Amino acid sequence: MTASGETPRTVGVGLISVGWMGRLHSRAYSVLPFFYPELGIRTRLVAAADTAPAGREYAANVLGFERTFADYRDVLADPEVEVVSICAPNFLHAEIAVAAAEAGKPFWVEKPVGRSAIETAAVRDAAEKAGVPTTIGFNYRHVPAVEHARQLINEGTIGTITNVRGRFFGGFSSNPEDPFTWRFEREQSGSGVLNDLMGHLADLIHYLLGPIGSVTAVTGTYLTDRPGLKGTPHEGTRVPVQNEDYATMLIRFDDSAVAAGALGSLEASRIAVGPKSEYGFEIFGTEGSLRWEFERLNEIEIAIGRTGSHVGYTRVFADRSFPEYDRFQPSSGTGMGYDDLKVIEAKKFLVSATGGPAEGSNIADALASAQVLSAAEESAASSQWVTTPVVPGNTSNTKEKSA
Amino acid sequence: MTASGETPRTVGVGLISVGWMGRLHSRAYSVLPFFYPELGIRTRLVAAADTAPAGREYAANVLGFERTFADYRDVLADPEVEVVSICAPNFLHAEIAVAAAEAGKPFWVEKPVGRSAIETAAVRDAAEKAGVPTTIGFNYRHVPAVEHARQLINEGTIGTITNVRGRFFGGFSSNPEDPFTWRFEREQSGSGVLNDLMGHLADLIHYLLGPIGSVTAVTGTYLTDRPGLKGTPHEGTRVPVQNEDYATMLIRFDDSAVAAGALGSLEASRIAVGPKSEYGFEIFGTEGSLRWEFERLNEIEIAIGRTGSHVGYTRVFADRSFPEYDRFQPSSGTGMGYDDLKVIEAKKFLVSATGGPAEGSNIADALASAQVLSAAEESAASSQWVTTPVVPGNTSNTKEKSA
Amino acid sequence: MTASGETPRTVGVGLISVGWMGRLHSRAYSVLPFFYPELGIRTRLVAAADTAPAGREYAANVLGFERTFADYRDVLADPEVEVVSICAPNFLHAEIAVAAAEAGKPFWVEKPVGRSAIETAAVRDAAEKAGVPTTIGFNYRHVPAVEHARQLINEGTIGTITNVRGRFFGGFSSNPEDPFTWRFEREQSGSGVLNDLMGHLADLIHYLLGPIGSVTAVTGTYLTDRPGLKGTPHEGTRVPVQNEDYATMLIRFDDSAVAAGALGSLEASRIAVGPKSEYGFEIFGTEGSLRWEFERLNEIEIAIGRTGSHVGYTRVFADRSFPEYDRFQPSSGTGMGYDDLKVIEAKKFLVSATGGPAEGSNIADALASAQVLSAAEESAASSQWVTTPVVPGNTSNTKEKSA
Amino acid sequence: MTASGETPRTVGVGLISVGWMGRLHSRAYSVLPFFYPELGIRTRLVAAADTAPAGREYAANVLGFERTFADYRDVLADPEVEVVSICAPNFLHAEIAVAAAEAGKPFWVEKPVGRSAIETAAVRDAAEKAGVPTTIGFNYRHVPAVEHARQLINEGTIGTITNVRGRFFGGFSSNPEDPFTWRFEREQSGSGVLNDLMGHLADLIHYLLGPIGSVTAVTGTYLTDRPGLKGTPHEGTRVPVQNEDYATMLIRFDDSAVAAGALGSLEASRIAVGPKSEYGFEIFGTEGSLRWEFERLNEIEIAIGRTGSHVGYTRVFADRSFPEYDRFQPSSGTGMGYDDLKVIEAKKFLVSATGGPAEGSNIADALASAQVLSAAEESAASSQWVTTPVVPGNTSNTKEKSA
Repeated sequence: MTASGETPRTVGVGLISVGWMGRLHSRAYSVLPFFYPELGIRTRLVAAADTAPAGREYAANVLGFERTFADYRDVLADPEVEVVSICAPNFLHAEIAVAAAEAGKPFWVEKPVGRSAIETAAVRDAAEKAGVPTTIGFNYRHVPAVEHARQLINEGTIGTITNVRGRFFGGFSSNPEDPFTWRFEREQSGSGVLNDLMGHLADLIHYLLGPIGSVTAVTGTYLTDRPGLKGTPHEGTRVPVQNEDYATMLIRFDDSAVAAGALGSLEASRIAVGPKSEYGFEIFGTEGSLRWEFERLNEIEIAIGRTGSHVGYTRVFADRSFPEYDRFQPSSGTGMGYDDLKVIEAKKFLVSATGGPAEGSNIADALASAQVLSAAEESAASSQWVTTPVVPGNTSNTKEKSA
Repeated sequence: MTASGETPRTVGVGLISVGWMGRLHSRAYSVLPFFYPELGIRTRLVAAADTAPAGREYAANVLGFERTFADYRDVLADPEVEVVSICAPNFLHAEIAVAAAEAGKPFWVEKPVGRSAIETAAVRDAAEKAGVPTTIGFNYRHVPAVEHARQLINEGTIGTITNVRGRFFGGFSSNPEDPFTWRFEREQSGSGVLNDLMGHLADLIHYLLGPIGSVTAVTGTYLTDRPGLKGTPHEGTRVPVQNEDYATMLIRFDDSAVAAGALGSLEASRIAVGPKSEYGFEIFGTEGSLRWEFERLNEIEIAIGRTGSHVGYTRVFADRSFPEYDRFQPSSGTGMGYDDLKVIEAKKFLVSATGGPAEGSNIADALASAQVLSAAEESAASSQWVTTPVVPGNTSNTKEKSA
Repeated sequence: MTASGETPRTVGVGLISVGWMGRLHSRAYSVLPFFYPELGIRTRLVAAADTAPAGREYAANVLGFERTFADYRDVLADPEVEVVSICAPNFLHAEIAVAAAEAGKPFWVEKPVGRSAIETAAVRDAAEKAGVPTTIGFNYRHVPAVEHARQLINEGTIGTITNVRGRFFGGFSSNPEDPFTWRFEREQSGSGVLNDLMGHLADLIHYLLGPIGSVTAVTGTYLTDRPGLKGTPHEGTRVPVQNEDYATMLIRFDDSAVAAGALGSLEASRIAVGPKSEYGFEIFGTEGSLRWEFERLNEIEIAIGRTGSHVGYTRVFADRSFPEYDRFQPSSGTGMGYDDLKVIEAKKFLVSATGGPAEGSNIADALASAQVLSAAEESAASSQWVTTPVVPGNTSNTKEKSA
Repeated sequence: MTASGETPRTVGVGLISVGWMGRLHSRAYSVLPFFYPELGIRTRLVAAADTAPAGREYAANVLGFERTFADYRDVLADPEVEVVSICAPNFLHAEIAVAAAEAGKPFWVEKPVGRSAIETAAVRDAAEKAGVPTTIGFNYRHVPAVEHARQLINEGTIGTITNVRGRFFGGFSSNPEDPFTWRFEREQSGSGVLNDLMGHLADLIHYLLGPIGSVTAVTGTYLTDRPGLKGTPHEGTRVPVQNEDYATMLIRFDDSAVAAGALGSLEASRIAVGPKSEYGFEIFGTEGSLRWEFERLNEIEIAIGRTGSHVGYTRVFADRSFPEYDRFQPSSGTGMGYDDLKVIEAKKFLVSATGGPAEGSNIADALASAQVLSAAEESAASSQWVTTPVVPGNTSNTKEKSA
């Protein structure tokens, strides 16, 4: 029952691929009613697919799925599956998402949706044609401090936006002796850190400041080869890395953006030594500035005002005045974790998938982000500024919306 | 089933009081199998008690308890309830815990167990007599960075411990216009910040460094009266606050402690303006030092070594080398939240309650902490150092254990 | 000439001991007119004493003293020496200061003035009898951020003071293989870290919050012996350390103090591994709190207010609104250095020594601080609270003065 | 005399313009022998020029110049003036510097040397023709932590450099109601924040990582008009700002650079709200990374190594192992100030001007920096990458030099 005792709406869930992310989606579904009881939504974990037997066993025995399959098509074909989580390896996202759309199933797909903007556009087209709601795993949007930053921007608290810096620096590929995997292969991953971390960052900037209008970019590959993976034909050799370790770009915003006229730079690295998950932004306006970083997701640095005796950055911990925070914790200084972001994402997905308003990101956002990456790749090749077309239906922060 | 497909052991759970903490316990039970599947333990939420109908409805409709009662005794009497979570208002903890012990039910009780060391001792006696496993809500013990600190101490990485500072500073009572509640009443709460925050801190110090041997303390009450609560006879008047806002003490460790010979100070405040949940410690040894704080629970500052060109504090994020971290997150920089600590606590409770080893805190730890608070109160009154007796069976960090 | 073209008053300076501190005093005298031109004070470096020829040569050749002596008495006897800087080894401070007083010379003496409160009292008596102005090397008082903190306290910005923590943690004696020197010998140094760092801290607390009324303390020696110094009879042996490495105390303020009723703790260590010069304080009041540390002397963390959406610590850099800052730097974020503090101290000394107002610390402050240390030593021996008498003429922050 | 008793070499100094910077140069000359006694260099402040009588009086009465003039040409013509400090308003730097060169006087000129690369090139040509040593006011080079960073880079400690971010963010022009001054006028200043802060930053990057080879840039002006200055014809009107508030660029290094192959971005703002003097860099290599900022000039964050249990940033305070530090302070944690950087700069200038090695920046460095700014301006106009020619004789960090 729901908090008020009515019969909840139970949604049948299908999961495709039972890795770390598939488990996280499943847990998010399971705990959702604890945090959003008034929604009246419960999930039933109906079917999970994984090519590996261990994945299927985990889905059944630990996550509690009612049935499992080796082939994801069986999940999509299951009549009791009403919505689908697509957590397969990146190179399969697009194919599966198109299939989900064609099966008429709303889907929650992890990023990157496609290996390229073209693949992502195909998914967009399929979802649009099928009319299915979609949600993308752009989880950084849901951080209460990020949502609060967006509110401050939209309320004009930091004035006219002048410049922004976004940075997503991880070190997960910093060891040159880590083996060559799909991550370093163009066929499987498309671009490198662009399609991985920069995709998140582009979406976050879209969400906070509006559509990026044009970019000029450079990319670099520094760890140029890696040991072949054991048990593959490459074992014992060094394999050339096929995509970039680092990318940086200058950006201009589209005229429709809340931050129209502002400038900035976006950087991403997968080989940074020092940062662990330094995913964050700094946004400057004529009246103030904001700084946030994922490594300390529960806090944000805020400077407002140019005069007065105590001008400077205040370290503010998320509290009940920040969106969603009080769903999770009762008082400031008590930290939410990463997993909570996925609960919020699950909620937005299920609300939209059950006919409610679409509060989260959607496939148009994935395409908008992918087009920034595509423009960046093109720019890195041509050394020219490249324009990124605005994607209809995306949820980036436009002047129109924020007005 | 368990991860390996065997039939899990299902444990019937009873909950007493359905407030924030009761909900948190319940969620922890529910998600436990996701994080510790190999334990083969599942819980069944059998019965919950709350004097308020809304609490009972929440327990049934949101948390999923099978039945609910107004009287906690009904939960204890329920034959399907095998273990009990005691999350009632503080002044009832001891009474209920004794009743749980007498009913032969292992219990997980929130702190403070008693309003005084005497009350806590009564619970200890009852639990001992009944032979029931117990777990106390000393959740800060479970933070991976705290566990890592304990490992470094026990491995001798920071040398001989010389001094420690513990501080638990919150601001939840900093507004003098917040009404007079149970928190400020001696009859309901016993001492003030001592029994609340300092109890946590004393336990954390015991866990990290060993039993505190003696203390000298002072306490202060600064917000001396508060508005009477609406709907009570005090409405419209100001009511004198009956217990302390702030306490500080010097400590010496018992000879059995890992930190025998070290000195230190422990402070707690409930009226600090600035800190939100600044609960932390700094531990110094002859070879290094450690600093941790709950507001940034996923990191720890570590300085090791006196010479070399880059001596200083390194900010280290919890990673897979820290205890329990990889149960929750795959890579460093991705934050765990407060709720995860309660999952770990639930696991330790259920392991001990089902005949496994007792890895967590127990009622002897609660008594050990309470005796420090009692000694502090006595010292504040007498202006003398007061000795705290060592409590048999507690899990503080002794030389013997760490050897 | 002065800034306005008048003939400046030239003051003849004597220096006793030409080590690091003597050089720093000399430089401060020399650059003073650059920073305080309107004072119309210039100094003439008349005579310096050092037992070592190299010190005398440095004084003459580098610092520009007109004449040098081996015996400090020759400096005091020099009729052209009007004021004296006493920078000799600590154990000689008192003897020389008494002699300076008897010679009728205003003196600026480094801390600790005496090896004990008794020695310091003798200096106070001599200075009082002679009627000479005095200044003590309590340089942390002069930091603009510290002065600003004092203003905020006195203006009531952080409300009624409730508690304070002071900490002076250095690591300069953290290596147990550093040789046994005067620092570790009771005859030469008196107490250990108490007389060294804690003396500074006690004065800083007096200056900010008013006289400390009573203390209870503990002390510890952890590096109990050290290699005998080469070229001494101890070479080749290990010599027992004779005074404490670490001290901590609880404090209550005197009723006359601005912070009357507040509680707190003061700690000092000379063997901390990690901190370099972590000399600082945290002061809490009913309306806000302040944090400052010497390692980052140009900034202060300030939290004011209990409500509102952005409560927390603001990192504020010293700017023109902070006392003395604009004498040294034009704009916030541009750092002053430690040496600048000595320029401010020199200015206060010379102003008072030439008949102007006494703005700085004086010998009564040195005695007040020494009495806190003496009380701490007594308390560490007796395990009792010990009262510290208020010293007439000191400049600690009393309610009367701040009114 | 020098430290060793020999007669020092006395250098006659001329100063042009007695504002804040002229005073700072003068003080640096005066205190130099205290910090570098073994050089055997003393200065005699011979002649100062300022168009304002108050400036001339200050030079004579406070700084101690022997004579003063209204016209800078009189300083250059003075036969006792051997070296010259050029601290005039920016738009006069080039004219005066050329005149100084033609007068055969080594000069120390503040940045920006010219309003454009063309003007700066003219100075370079004049200095080269005259064969006079030169020093540029690129003071951030001299910070011990910066010098240490350069050592780590050159020793390979952080591996192959992969990417860099430089940022110079000030808020000194953030108030739109501050009047229109020379700073906002193209005729007087050339470009805006490019020629001001970015010039410093480009030099710092050259010094640390080697010559920048090409850039693509964008600039923005956000506070587009300002009140006319009182007492000018513009009083009472709003005057359009003529140059940029903010600039950002991507950079590639020249093949000769230590960081050849690395990428990066440089940003500068004069209207940032929040930062005070956030002038700093982050440099990433395959084995580690470094972060430094002027607001905390005495420290640097260092992460070295990809594996091990305590990977992360260590906050390291400058100590005796850092270049120049022990000239100023005896022990780590005791802060140097901004003025000390100018003492080091004065030393390098005087050493080179008296026939010693040229350790500091020189006019070729000023031109190299100016060419980056010029390229950035061109790029901002054309939206193309623009190549910056390498300038002979500059001291940027090339592979050849660091080998």
